[in-house]
Amino acid sequence: MQQGFEFTLHCSDSNCDARRSTFTTPHGLVEMPAFMPVATLGTVKGLEIDQVRATGAHMILGNTYHLTLRPGEQVVRELGGLHQFMGWDGPILTDSGGFQIFSLAQRTKVTERGAEFQSHIDGSKLSLTPERSIQIQQALGSDIAMVLDHVVSLPNDDAAIRDACERSIRWAKRCQELSAPLQAQFAIVQGGLDKELRKECAARLAELDFPGYAIGGLSVGEPPAAMYGILDATCSHLPADRPRYLMGVGRPEDLLQGILRGVDMFDCVMPTRNGRNAFAFTDSGPLRMRNEIHRTDDRPLEEGCPCIACRRSRGYIRHLFMASEMLGPILLTAHNLTYYQRLMSDAREAIEQNRFVDFFRGKMAGWGAPAEIPG
Amino acid sequence: MQQGFEFTLHCSDSNCDARRSTFTTPHGLVEMPAFMPVATLGTVKGLEIDQVRATGAHMILGNTYHLTLRPGEQVVRELGGLHQFMGWDGPILTDSGGFQIFSLAQRTKVTERGAEFQSHIDGSKLSLTPERSIQIQQALGSDIAMVLDHVVSLPNDDAAIRDACERSIRWAKRCQELSAPLQAQFAIVQGGLDKELRKECAARLAELDFPGYAIGGLSVGEPPAAMYGILDATCSHLPADRPRYLMGVGRPEDLLQGILRGVDMFDCVMPTRNGRNAFAFTDSGPLRMRNEIHRTDDRPLEEGCPCIACRRSRGYIRHLFMASEMLGPILLTAHNLTYYQRLMSDAREAIEQNRFVDFFRGKMAGWGAPAEIPG
Repeated sequence: MQQGFEFTLHCSDSNCDARRSTFTTPHGLVEMPAFMPVATLGTVKGLEIDQVRATGAHMILGNTYHLTLRPGEQVVRELGGLHQFMGWDGPILTDSGGFQIFSLAQRTKVTERGAEFQSHIDGSKLSLTPERSIQIQQALGSDIAMVLDHVVSLPNDDAAIRDACERSIRWAKRCQELSAPLQAQFAIVQGGLDKELRKECAARLAELDFPGYAIGGLSVGEPPAAMYGILDATCSHLPADRPRYLMGVGRPEDLLQGILRGVDMFDCVMPTRNGRNAFAFTDSGPLRMRNEIHRTDDRPLEEGCPCIACRRSRGYIRHLFMASEMLGPILLTAHNLTYYQRLMSDAREAIEQNRFVDFFRGKMAGWGAPAEIPG
Repeated sequence: MQQGFEFTLHCSDSNCDARRSTFTTPHGLVEMPAFMPVATLGTVKGLEIDQVRATGAHMILGNTYHLTLRPGEQVVRELGGLHQFMGWDGPILTDSGGFQIFSLAQRTKVTERGAEFQSHIDGSKLSLTPERSIQIQQALGSDIAMVLDHVVSLPNDDAAIRDACERSIRWAKRCQELSAPLQAQFAIVQGGLDKELRKECAARLAELDFPGYAIGGLSVGEPPAAMYGILDATCSHLPADRPRYLMGVGRPEDLLQGILRGVDMFDCVMPTRNGRNAFAFTDSGPLRMRNEIHRTDDRPLEEGCPCIACRRSRGYIRHLFMASEMLGPILLTAHNLTYYQRLMSDAREAIEQNRFVDFFRGKMAGWGAPAEIPG
């Protein structure tokens, strides 16, 4: 492992593939399994940085594509790098821009050199190569940089998926050649819903000895069961002594399904975006806070939740949304992120006590989610 | 003074009319001169309640007109009253709705009984009488309730101003008859820009022995000097042993001009509204945070300011506004409210040390504001 970084596997649950580990970075420890709140543009939307810390997050994620457009990585660098810029002194992971080029940019054209596309903000022509993505991430100064990958839509024809997967492996090598101190690069497994291709991609990337591995190109519209199947096929082909990161996932049940299969890290905009849309996560399923039913309800969103929203009543939170007050989105963002972090913390404890499967079944039952266990 | 309330005048500055006092309420002390942040709909826009407390505010203001429309005072009452509803355990002052009927409601018709108008939200027909205003404020459970007053636009003809002033006095008496324990009512001096009428109104309301007195109907477009002239004419005719509240004012320089003339309390949306519009108050005048000049500026908004915004750089705050991130308005709201509270705290200290006039001149010079002293 690269200097300044360390992955320590504490234990695995004997009844499934769930793992309890710690990842050490130059900016501190990440207890795993871990969920990273998304700070797209150098801010977790709606929260002051102390409020982000108070949710229990250890590591956050910044978006290379967004930050290179606004304010530009040179501005961030002049202002001390992404940690100082936004006031987060813990670990930061930056993505590579690969997913945004696929999902957000316009008129994208991918060649072996890289991607050409138009900005989603002003239509200006831009390009992103593997080298440029790493250069931006180095200017941002993140602890973990992701290699640039070629993401394709699903379903897609086999040749296109294989082609993008092969290119992603070649691009990973090009990124690795620019690896710098104090920043660990994670490679990204592609391969669509083709289990054999995923296995092959995982094995070939594993040979390149990256400090960590991600599973990308999922949660792009495929059924959850298909995603879980890919995790089953992929995780066992990734090195056991490196963290495994399932990118852009997902719902609370997806996180537990991932952990069950040996995933260590997650990120998703769901807790923040849904929070802004009046949707609150609880152990007994979601609450839609604009609903009339909450009008004079004096209970908190979730009994026992230590977040700032749960000091108020459901009735107050409903009022804030009905009156379009900023505090509604702020409070639900804090609640949902706290919910996700408590879920991870409870999952870590369950693995330590070798009872993750019971924990998994209990949570799934509360949410009314299917809890079939693989194998 | 009513039970549960106490006004203690600690000292006056010997070179002007500035006073240092404390007002005791059932929910705690208010050190005066004091500035009240505006929590229109049960939230200081953009801030979580702990962040409001951290700005140094002792008392906040809620709007009767807005809260009776949304969520309705009965909902607030069912959820424990305004203090519990919004999580503020300090003193709360509610206005009467008089100013909003004048400024915000549509097709307003004022008769001796009260005002008939249409909601600015959905156009529904509503009425507000002096009795109803007090009833709403009692349901909200504020520490200080304002009597319903009849506000008219300025300039206006003498008869209309006199008529509204006389009606405001009659309405004050009707409110006083409904006075209840644990809630102090403040009367409101009207009279437009007519100094004699202001004096008369102040003297006649003083005879009614209210626990506090407000100066209303100002900051409605008249020149600042005209407002200061009215303060000169009015304050000396209000009882020295009761707090004096200048409603809806104002800019930092207006606050100091008011304190110089013996005003004890202020409220205004300026620090919060301007903050949401990228405008930051500092001792050397305002900063417009969308300006290109701040792009890579690593300084805080104001050296020595303890607020959450001043832990970040001007460059970061500019980025947040350029990217339309919620955190931009949040941080500037916190900064501006902290700026106002520090100004009040420094003013209190200056009065205690009998150097308020020097303090006044120093601040005015920093802002580039005219600092003529009356008399």
